[in-house]
Amino acid sequence: MNTKDTICSISTPQGIGAIAIVRMSGSQSYAIAQQLFKFDFNSLHPYEAKYAELLDGEQLVDQVMVLKYAAPHSYTGEDMVEISCHGSTYIQQKILELLLEHGCRMANPGEYTMRAFMNGKMDLPQAEAVGDLIESQSEASHHLAVNQLKGLFSAKIKELRTQFVEFASLLELELDFSEENVQFANRERLSALLSALKNEVNSLIDSFKAGNAIKSGIPVVIIGKPNVGKSTLLNTLLQDERAIVSHIPGTTRDTIEDVLNIGGVTFRFIDTAGIRNSDDEIENYGIERTYQAVAKADVILYMVDAANTSVDEIQEEINFLKEEVDMSDKKMIIIANKIDSLTEMPRQIRKLKDYDHVYISAKRKVNIEAVTDLLLAWASQHKKTDYAMLTNVRHYDIFLKIRTSIENIEKGLADAVPTDLVAIDVREALHYLGMVTGEIATDDILNTIFGHFCIGK
Amino acid sequence: MNTKDTICSISTPQGIGAIAIVRMSGSQSYAIAQQLFKFDFNSLHPYEAKYAELLDGEQLVDQVMVLKYAAPHSYTGEDMVEISCHGSTYIQQKILELLLEHGCRMANPGEYTMRAFMNGKMDLPQAEAVGDLIESQSEASHHLAVNQLKGLFSAKIKELRTQFVEFASLLELELDFSEENVQFANRERLSALLSALKNEVNSLIDSFKAGNAIKSGIPVVIIGKPNVGKSTLLNTLLQDERAIVSHIPGTTRDTIEDVLNIGGVTFRFIDTAGIRNSDDEIENYGIERTYQAVAKADVILYMVDAANTSVDEIQEEINFLKEEVDMSDKKMIIIANKIDSLTEMPRQIRKLKDYDHVYISAKRKVNIEAVTDLLLAWASQHKKTDYAMLTNVRHYDIFLKIRTSIENIEKGLADAVPTDLVAIDVREALHYLGMVTGEIATDDILNTIFGHFCIGK
Repeated sequence: MNTKDTICSISTPQGIGAIAIVRMSGSQSYAIAQQLFKFDFNSLHPYEAKYAELLDGEQLVDQVMVLKYAAPHSYTGEDMVEISCHGSTYIQQKILELLLEHGCRMANPGEYTMRAFMNGKMDLPQAEAVGDLIESQSEASHHLAVNQLKGLFSAKIKELRTQFVEFASLLELELDFSEENVQFANRERLSALLSALKNEVNSLIDSFKAGNAIKSGIPVVIIGKPNVGKSTLLNTLLQDERAIVSHIPGTTRDTIEDVLNIGGVTFRFIDTAGIRNSDDEIENYGIERTYQAVAKADVILYMVDAANTSVDEIQEEINFLKEEVDMSDKKMIIIANKIDSLTEMPRQIRKLKDYDHVYISAKRKVNIEAVTDLLLAWASQHKKTDYAMLTNVRHYDIFLKIRTSIENIEKGLADAVPTDLVAIDVREALHYLGMVTGEIATDDILNTIFGHFCIGK
Repeated sequence: MNTKDTICSISTPQGIGAIAIVRMSGSQSYAIAQQLFKFDFNSLHPYEAKYAELLDGEQLVDQVMVLKYAAPHSYTGEDMVEISCHGSTYIQQKILELLLEHGCRMANPGEYTMRAFMNGKMDLPQAEAVGDLIESQSEASHHLAVNQLKGLFSAKIKELRTQFVEFASLLELELDFSEENVQFANRERLSALLSALKNEVNSLIDSFKAGNAIKSGIPVVIIGKPNVGKSTLLNTLLQDERAIVSHIPGTTRDTIEDVLNIGGVTFRFIDTAGIRNSDDEIENYGIERTYQAVAKADVILYMVDAANTSVDEIQEEINFLKEEVDMSDKKMIIIANKIDSLTEMPRQIRKLKDYDHVYISAKRKVNIEAVTDLLLAWASQHKKTDYAMLTNVRHYDIFLKIRTSIENIEKGLADAVPTDLVAIDVREALHYLGMVTGEIATDDILNTIFGHFCIGK
């Protein structure tokens, strides 16, 4: 990983706009910038912007604003130059070409942020938060990323680290006296510390599902028979003024997912086939997918035809589903659709007391608010973004390992394993924490993390 | 047109990126910015950038760079604030919302540039050049826009204006003595001046076609019988490394245009039907379109099948075309395609000495360079961007009127019309020049011009 050379990129979104920013970072930034301007670049103060003509030899390329940053007081911690140009694709490309010609190298995805991390401007979770921040499209996911960027999560890791270190030093104390085969009264304090650590780690691990749902969207699966109005409901939700929508490719080729932002919360809707058993192989394949989707979902919208519904049948199908999928953590909402086709309000679904239920007409847009209100109510119960949460699969994987370390320590203490062996597990847990913060990081890990960033960040 | 309030917009291209810029212009810019930051905004110097936390009340929205401009030393000539934020759509929208909440108004398309014009930072052709600059996608069109932005075109108008004023004052002199019914020897000088003016105006008018071709792409029409390989040639050109391509909707619904950037020059390819007369009504409709396309084109690529070509037939068809369309200004290139299917090189097309001709295989990509070289050679002959050119339909329309004024003056002088009547035409010409530079501009004109800009410029 070469961090010595000077990198450049277009850092604003792709395309044509009023203004675009081309920027450079590295020790040669000023020298390269000097090639493009007639004024003395050294005369510019750090944090000072200047209006100037950007030249290719004698040829005017554009009238730009150029802004100078001096190491270490820049985003990357290096000398940096930002050029705000007119946002034509031609000018953006032309300026980039000139910088490359004069000795810059194209920045890799996330390379500015990686340098910021390498130069100690932020730790790894903060750097990861930058990527999340740029991708966040809802208030909740933005809030999560901002908290992580501010260092809320890093502070939590630091706290855990302090506790582990304290634990280690208590253990060390025992180790010093181990030849005398003395067991200290501290053993109780060790247990207390360890169980506190375990609780904290477990609650972080538990927060991952919610954290991830906030980041990627709360998974909502819609099930029901064909023609019961599933896509009509989805379309109606899409048209709702409160919903901002984007269609994304499903996680599998044959799943259609719609990501909706409803009232500042992102929901990820998955449309499925029904849940009835069948002898038809193709249909069974669809049903298998339904089970998988339900297993991954937080909320299940169970749609039925209000005019044509037997409570027993619904209960039977739900029981059928429960046999296949663990439903204990999931919210089930029964939606009786097509009330527009009824002359009087049906009541029978009320008998299904264990589940929320609403009567709607997806087609006539009747009572749709009841559906979104139930979704938002559920989300607000599970939206706990003001404490440190796990939102990142990488962190989650590491924390599962930390939990294993803690379990080993616990077991070691219970089994009166020699203290120096227990100490190995403690060091391992500390090692894992270092992997979270980036104190311990390989090129591979960094490349994986920053490879997912956009170019220019 | 309200230019008193403070306007804001996202000024970088739409979408997600590393960085986005939200900016404000107007007297309240600093006061509104102060609402978002805890530091004292007055402590910031003009042209100084500062790293700061942007807050919504107490809630952190983003860590941003904020840059201050002070009137009149800004793009618009007003106080301005530029906020560089993380480029998520959520953050961009959120900051925009906050600015609107605190008293900004959404900027209209081109409103920053319009204010720059209103505040005397640039004249109207320069302001129009900003729009052209952002849209320019080729070196040539960029060069044209940059020249106009630098004021090359404005300088030309100024020069014309000086000449007209000189002309007017000579005329005025005559007018003073007109009661004495004296005709001055100056009459010759008047004629000389007028004919110089006429030449300049005519050459500007003549430059419009080339200027417009550079800006929008040199129109190239491909004609030939079905299956002669027209679309294969187009596809091959598209795949050429030197060509950057964009498909744009045709000027008519049924014309397909491909815009290719070949070697820094934009070409606009129009694929057509053949040119043979026919009794089939639908085919005739296609042929009618071919004539229209040829009439508008600068270059005609006449494609024939190398294996199956009669020189007489080609000559006959070209003659046919010449009857319908004035071909005097156009470049005709005969392309004999499908040489891959021949065992020996056909020679007969060489007999058509009046036209360039090339043998190619569009399918096997043989000799395609010969086509692009001919196109580029033609373009370089007609690429005269280092003097002032008319590139703008608005300017073109006004210059046609100026030409009429000159013709009227000429006629007046020839017919010995009373000098004060001739002076009316001179004032009219000056009025038109003022319309070009924007000294005389109505709200309607400005709205039309800036309405075509992107928002944020």
